[in-house]
Amino acid sequence: MTLYFEDLRPGTVYQLGSVTVDGAEMVAFARRFDPQPFHVDAEAARHTPFGGLIASGWYTGSVFMRLYVDALLVDAASEGSPGLTELRWLSPVRAGDVLHGRLTVLDSRPSRSSPKRGTALLRGELLRDGEPVMRTTFRGLFGRRPD
Amino acid sequence: MTLYFEDLRPGTVYQLGSVTVDGAEMVAFARRFDPQPFHVDAEAARHTPFGGLIASGWYTGSVFMRLYVDALLVDAASEGSPGLTELRWLSPVRAGDVLHGRLTVLDSRPSRSSPKRGTALLRGELLRDGEPVMRTTFRGLFGRRPD
Repeated sequence: MTLYFEDLRPGTVYQLGSVTVDGAEMVAFARRFDPQPFHVDAEAARHTPFGGLIASGWYTGSVFMRLYVDALLVDAASEGSPGLTELRWLSPVRAGDVLHGRLTVLDSRPSRSSPKRGTALLRGELLRDGEPVMRTTFRGLFGRRPD
Repeated sequence: MTLYFEDLRPGTVYQLGSVTVDGAEMVAFARRFDPQPFHVDAEAARHTPFGGLIASGWYTGSVFMRLYVDALLVDAASEGSPGLTELRWLSPVRAGDVLHGRLTVLDSRPSRSSPKRGTALLRGELLRDGEPVMRTTFRGLFGRRPD
């Protein structure tokens, strides 16, 4: 059942499932995209305020995205996103963390320029033991349900 | 010469160098983290509003991060980031695009809780032929120059 713009009602909360952070992938990602000592060098990381290796924030955001795609966008009239209005890394993410994804529809409005789509304002969160470690607010474009 | 909090003066603009988007890596990233048709399936992408494959926004952000690390953070007293206050994907990014990174210091203030660090408000951009394709505003934590 394809998810259309009309289905994204403000207040709706979607549970996006869980994932365990793979330490090897987490570090490989950082070596390629964010090679700062606290992301790639376990020994150096011990002497930083983080006290050990933590995930690149871009990795954490990408992990959220995959949960969101698998749970919702895989069968949705998604047309991408113009951007984020906020992204907070609230707590360091580490190898082995079990992260749960959650999506809340904050607002939705039909497009002024096209009768075929609309924009939803969405809150995405990753939680560990019920506490958010990442929170983002972003806009998603969705096609409207065909007549 | 290590970059400290004191070096990040409002108004300073750093050129972060350029990179050519590798189509194979762009698609591999999306298969893992953002497997939407317009990111991973060339044939399906042709029938979307994008008219062909485009990069996941998380890939574009990660490409910016690598330019930023290589140009500046590689020798800086960086202590991570609490988050982004904005991220806009202004134009679709495609394989072969040559992207140039730019960082502008918008503001900086010493920490209220620690004499050892401060926060800079930074604007990061990726430009293609001089036009921004991605823009983000974010905070970076930096250690202060030792006496």
